[in-house]
Amino acid sequence: MLLSKLVGERVKEAPADVKIKSHILLQRAGYIKAVANGIYSLTSPAQLMAVNIENIIREEMNAVDGQEVKFPVVMPREMWESSGRYQSIGSEMVRFKDRGGKDMLLGMTHEEAAVHMAKNTVNSYNQLPFMIYQIQTKFRDEPRCRGGLIRVREFTMKDAYSFHMTQEDLAEYYDRCLEAYNRIFRRIGLKNFIAVKSDTGMMGGSVAHEFMLLTEVGEDTLVLCDGCGYKSNMEVATGRRKEVSFKSLGKAEEVYTADAKDIESVAKYLGTDAAHTVKAVVFAAKGEDGVVIAFLRGDLEVNEAKLKKAVGKNVVPWEGEEEGIVAGNIGPIGLTAKATVVFDKSLEGALGMVCGANKAEYHIRNVDVERDIAPREYTDVSKVCEGDGCPVCGKSLRLENGIEIGNIFQLGTKYTAAMDMTVLNEKGEAVNPIMGCYGIGVGRAIASIAQESNDENGLILPITVAPYKVHITPLRMDDAEVGEKAFGLYEALKKEGISVLLDDRTNVSNGVKFADADLMGMPIRIVISPRGLKNGEIEIKERASGLTENAAYGKAVEAIRAKIRKLTEEIGA
Amino acid sequence: MLLSKLVGERVKEAPADVKIKSHILLQRAGYIKAVANGIYSLTSPAQLMAVNIENIIREEMNAVDGQEVKFPVVMPREMWESSGRYQSIGSEMVRFKDRGGKDMLLGMTHEEAAVHMAKNTVNSYNQLPFMIYQIQTKFRDEPRCRGGLIRVREFTMKDAYSFHMTQEDLAEYYDRCLEAYNRIFRRIGLKNFIAVKSDTGMMGGSVAHEFMLLTEVGEDTLVLCDGCGYKSNMEVATGRRKEVSFKSLGKAEEVYTADAKDIESVAKYLGTDAAHTVKAVVFAAKGEDGVVIAFLRGDLEVNEAKLKKAVGKNVVPWEGEEEGIVAGNIGPIGLTAKATVVFDKSLEGALGMVCGANKAEYHIRNVDVERDIAPREYTDVSKVCEGDGCPVCGKSLRLENGIEIGNIFQLGTKYTAAMDMTVLNEKGEAVNPIMGCYGIGVGRAIASIAQESNDENGLILPITVAPYKVHITPLRMDDAEVGEKAFGLYEALKKEGISVLLDDRTNVSNGVKFADADLMGMPIRIVISPRGLKNGEIEIKERASGLTENAAYGKAVEAIRAKIRKLTEEIGA
Repeated sequence: MLLSKLVGERVKEAPADVKIKSHILLQRAGYIKAVANGIYSLTSPAQLMAVNIENIIREEMNAVDGQEVKFPVVMPREMWESSGRYQSIGSEMVRFKDRGGKDMLLGMTHEEAAVHMAKNTVNSYNQLPFMIYQIQTKFRDEPRCRGGLIRVREFTMKDAYSFHMTQEDLAEYYDRCLEAYNRIFRRIGLKNFIAVKSDTGMMGGSVAHEFMLLTEVGEDTLVLCDGCGYKSNMEVATGRRKEVSFKSLGKAEEVYTADAKDIESVAKYLGTDAAHTVKAVVFAAKGEDGVVIAFLRGDLEVNEAKLKKAVGKNVVPWEGEEEGIVAGNIGPIGLTAKATVVFDKSLEGALGMVCGANKAEYHIRNVDVERDIAPREYTDVSKVCEGDGCPVCGKSLRLENGIEIGNIFQLGTKYTAAMDMTVLNEKGEAVNPIMGCYGIGVGRAIASIAQESNDENGLILPITVAPYKVHITPLRMDDAEVGEKAFGLYEALKKEGISVLLDDRTNVSNGVKFADADLMGMPIRIVISPRGLKNGEIEIKERASGLTENAAYGKAVEAIRAKIRKLTEEIGA
Repeated sequence: MLLSKLVGERVKEAPADVKIKSHILLQRAGYIKAVANGIYSLTSPAQLMAVNIENIIREEMNAVDGQEVKFPVVMPREMWESSGRYQSIGSEMVRFKDRGGKDMLLGMTHEEAAVHMAKNTVNSYNQLPFMIYQIQTKFRDEPRCRGGLIRVREFTMKDAYSFHMTQEDLAEYYDRCLEAYNRIFRRIGLKNFIAVKSDTGMMGGSVAHEFMLLTEVGEDTLVLCDGCGYKSNMEVATGRRKEVSFKSLGKAEEVYTADAKDIESVAKYLGTDAAHTVKAVVFAAKGEDGVVIAFLRGDLEVNEAKLKKAVGKNVVPWEGEEEGIVAGNIGPIGLTAKATVVFDKSLEGALGMVCGANKAEYHIRNVDVERDIAPREYTDVSKVCEGDGCPVCGKSLRLENGIEIGNIFQLGTKYTAAMDMTVLNEKGEAVNPIMGCYGIGVGRAIASIAQESNDENGLILPITVAPYKVHITPLRMDDAEVGEKAFGLYEALKKEGISVLLDDRTNVSNGVKFADADLMGMPIRIVISPRGLKNGEIEIKERASGLTENAAYGKAVEAIRAKIRKLTEEIGA
């Protein structure tokens, strides 16, 4: 590709209001252009990265016996009603009427379509297991787009669906996919990623893992143990609480606390600490009257995913008014509000606590939880904290932020049962196959690479996914010999099937050319200069290490081949 | 791929109500599964064909300096308002509101997105010409889906957009694209296709060509001259009319014609022929009062595309009632209806004609057009007929049916002007670039291949696009040696990167295996049998020619390589 013709403007300054590095760099390098909120056009370098990533995904999916298929973006309501998700999914799913007045929707995921394809075409146990996958555009009307390609509304995704006769067979295949995912992320050049246990959310099913890129800009919190390797998404993480010493302080009594409402103020007012208070967090359950209240130790935070599972309801932070709820003074004693109440495990055995008195300006102190409240049960609905003990080995847990780059689920028979897909087992009985599903977002992979692999000058793209492996920067393009040799090498590389970008511009300075090359991030840069050519040489520079060497012009292609091999081996791809 | 695990049921019988061969075969072979009207899932063989076709398209687009990019499927209303197409396109475009209440749409084509990408990022003449293309899902809410993948609502399309400083540069590039298209269609194995001049329709612009697969099931009519090679879509075709002898028969006079209303009955009633009558065809102009009436010789048909251009209105067949319109007796003399009237060239100089009298049960005869009607002008609004003279060389024209498999347009500045995209020319003046656009539907290419390349037993897939180049059919899979050798060859081919399907089923007869192999249509079939193995041999059969030869098992891979080369050369790919 000639840089003079490449569509996509490179700019020096970070765009206003853009904070995340990958977003800044992809935009500055002219790789993406916003079309609407969370909707981007990819210019050629980004799209070529996408194609390279897709091809690596393809290879690895085929290696675990995947069959590439294609499901439609637009699907009819009936198909999603058959699984119950037409109703259960909210406004993140786009719905519209077609010209005939039929209800249609844009696919966010394709479990229904996968079952539809297999239903009645796969009939017998000896056709299982199988896995079908596609690489296709999806649309999710995401309320909080962010970070350029990190969280968008329209995206390209590889989604895969496997079908099995037994849970054991699924479990075995699931492990193969987990390994395939590790290979994919390594091959596309990511380094700092891990697989963690995760919540199954709207997909249904039991076991699930998320692949996470560890990065400070990640919105997910990961719980990690350096001792035994325990790894979990915060949503499902458990831990052993750091010990807190409790002692009974006598009889529970109401106490005036003025306008102290938050945990910190109340503890301060009463001369205690957050760990000796009972925090109340109120939620609304979608589509239901009343509220859900979680009581937990004041130094902890509610884990909403755990709470949802505990109450079996889709809870959201509560806003508004409710009879019997005195915001800032809510407590478990004398609570009159219509509420589903959950006590966190952290309250088990707690003595000498402070809790709200359900009356403005008052709390109750000296509360011994068993004696004064006696909850029917305690449920783990709080978040693990940095320094809590690992649930497996007891060593100290640490927290990191991460971006989800892929996920895998054991779905069970949720979809095959709902959509009445059966196959005959060896005994001739009709049974619902057991499914797994496996997703990777291609655009988010691009953003993750940009997020992880850069320096102050720009992107540093892995050799396996870079849109062009080689970026030729001729100095003094107006020099006849430089021009001739630059185009000569350009054509020679193209002929060899090595993707190459030639900066053929004559109207910019060498400084601009170098800056653009650094910003765009191709792994191998070739400098062709009048001085070098006097010795019959060109310069080869690795973008990542900065390592520079000279090579004879006549052996340039060979030297570049060697460099590509070396960089590929370093990735282990 | 193992056939036992391949999703997609093969069936013997053609599905009910399915008439078109490609539709029948793709469905019988289990390549497609309908999800909704005009919406299909592609099982793996069809999707692998799509990927192969897409890769050939990519190569050819890159060879004409194309940059692969990706535009979004979902676009905001504003973008399409800026070109005026948000209003001008009707219900074939899907519109919906996103969760924030914003008007969005599903892209049918991406001229606006292409201009949006280039606008403000390409600023100077020395960045032109360039071409950007994508391979992406599109949705068009087509009212008349038909023929399986031939006309659908959701489809994958390669769409390309070029930008130029001058009309000459566009014209030159356009010719390169025309040649690239010829190469693409040849390389994917189509034989009987041609490029014809076509109407520019809703795209705007001046020059356009359609690539047409010649087939009796095509809905387009093509006008061809074997003399000079003139080729045109009926919509824009012109021709020299076969001569009809006219003579004046005296004074025009009203004549009773009872209930004779259509041309044939009237001609018969009055003892003349259709060529000596004046046909009136009535249209409504969308969004306007009154009607449009085309008068033409009774033996001819109206060409709606020409009529639209002639009156500058979007006309549709008229239904209903209108003052002054006496259906079956409409004529140009004494017409009182509020109508835009067009006289076809075929009436120029006509004598002794019959036309309607605008009164029930009456016509007028002996009409000399110049003497009695004296139209202000004659416009060509009729269809060319089989046997008319070629407009270029005069030789006899013939008509054929065709399916559109691709199209290319010279768009001019319609979109760049409307969207205010300018670049500086050499004089430093801001000018609108001149655009071309170039489309190919991938699914329709699959259907076209199936339509053209088959026999009574099933599909005959070209080596370049077949999902698997080789189909191994072992006889007696339960025989240990057959099984071992079959799997051995299967693995050896996969290792060599040769795509292969192994019929590993043990529960079906050889007859079923052969029938399935024929139906699915892989170009090379390998039969491995106990008898052959006794001589250490396997059988290699070409699906297309039926040519069969034996090869030593130890040299099978080599023999298959040679066969692939031969079949590839035959296509000229």
